[in-house]
Amino acid sequence: MLISAEVDARLAGLGLAWPVPPQPVAAYVPSVRTGNLLFISGQLPFVDGKLTATGKVPVQVSLEQAQSAAARAALNALAVLRAELGGDWSRLVRIVRVGVFVAASPEFTESAKVANGASELLATLLGEAGRHARAAVGVAVLPLDAPVEVEVIAELQP
Amino acid sequence: MLISAEVDARLAGLGLAWPVPPQPVAAYVPSVRTGNLLFISGQLPFVDGKLTATGKVPVQVSLEQAQSAAARAALNALAVLRAELGGDWSRLVRIVRVGVFVAASPEFTESAKVANGASELLATLLGEAGRHARAAVGVAVLPLDAPVEVEVIAELQP
Amino acid sequence: MLISAEVDARLAGLGLAWPVPPQPVAAYVPSVRTGNLLFISGQLPFVDGKLTATGKVPVQVSLEQAQSAAARAALNALAVLRAELGGDWSRLVRIVRVGVFVAASPEFTESAKVANGASELLATLLGEAGRHARAAVGVAVLPLDAPVEVEVIAELQP
Repeated sequence: MLISAEVDARLAGLGLAWPVPPQPVAAYVPSVRTGNLLFISGQLPFVDGKLTATGKVPVQVSLEQAQSAAARAALNALAVLRAELGGDWSRLVRIVRVGVFVAASPEFTESAKVANGASELLATLLGEAGRHARAAVGVAVLPLDAPVEVEVIAELQP
Repeated sequence: MLISAEVDARLAGLGLAWPVPPQPVAAYVPSVRTGNLLFISGQLPFVDGKLTATGKVPVQVSLEQAQSAAARAALNALAVLRAELGGDWSRLVRIVRVGVFVAASPEFTESAKVANGASELLATLLGEAGRHARAAVGVAVLPLDAPVEVEVIAELQP
Repeated sequence: MLISAEVDARLAGLGLAWPVPPQPVAAYVPSVRTGNLLFISGQLPFVDGKLTATGKVPVQVSLEQAQSAAARAALNALAVLRAELGGDWSRLVRIVRVGVFVAASPEFTESAKVANGASELLATLLGEAGRHARAAVGVAVLPLDAPVEVEVIAELQP
């Protein structure tokens, strides 16, 4: 079972703090719970309301920047999840599925490496509960020209 | 709880009627129920078997046309849902998740605005039950050169 | 109810054998079970660790090659599912949802036909239990320059 103080300590160990869960800029909600599943809306790499990078990978955004953006988008998804949990990580069973969309030039074949930025953050912060099924694809363009969008499904305690 | 006559009245208020649920053109089914969840296949903006527009946004299809197409694809998803509900909207708990794929040129960064066409229709017709988690992305191309595809997961009464 | 010997016989009838479930090349797991649902990670058309084709449809990869690749990716998803079932197909209720991502040139409008390669394999091997909801889209590029990625959600017996 996850211990919230430990999760918080791991985040602090990365030099990070919990972001305020980003508010949707449109006509939808940050997450919806149905049964034990929480569907979290696609998250962009916002830091304090500003994208960490914009453009396509690898021309305008490097692989390293994109990995970092994927980690940030995943962190924002966790911030939404944490709000649903009331800050109590023991209420999380596990991350179920992560979808990673990478805004990529057609010749960029390393979207799995970009997605690892998200997957590894989840593993670092949540350990075994962070292990997930995943789909990673390279798309033409993302909202606001973000380089990465991360979508998460999580299982919560009943 | 949703009242079917009210949902129908809101649709009529938009000058619309329920479409016949589009039949898949391929080897799959319009929707699958598992437990309380209904997974609805990706819907295109068909009206009477014809796409409302074809091509990429914004070059061949304008933002406004794409928003309208997103609304139509969402309406087609609701037609599939309504068939599963036997026309009784009180059996819907809520829309859980909406995925919006926009066929976009790489420079088109407003796919969230296109997706709002779908999200706002759901809110207008279903109110609180229409509020959903969402992911919107811009893809290279969609089946039959459709400008938008909308995929929906809904929660039904047990 | 599915009978494992029959499923195996149908596969043999196609001249195929069950592949070893591909291992993720990154920081995620092949599948996650939550309640009765199994979320399977996006699968590429690997045969013995090598992609059956690489590149975009239809320029570098023909429609027929892409359909074949979609069938292979679906078979790999079934291999992951079969491992979870311990080889006992009677434990499968049905395939719920299939997502098919096709690495496509913007002018390629037949991604639904490519996706049929996956859908028809599921129908052939699993019959009624293989009928699924589906979303098919054409994306800019896939991991390792694969032409197709297939993602599956299945419902298992409690």
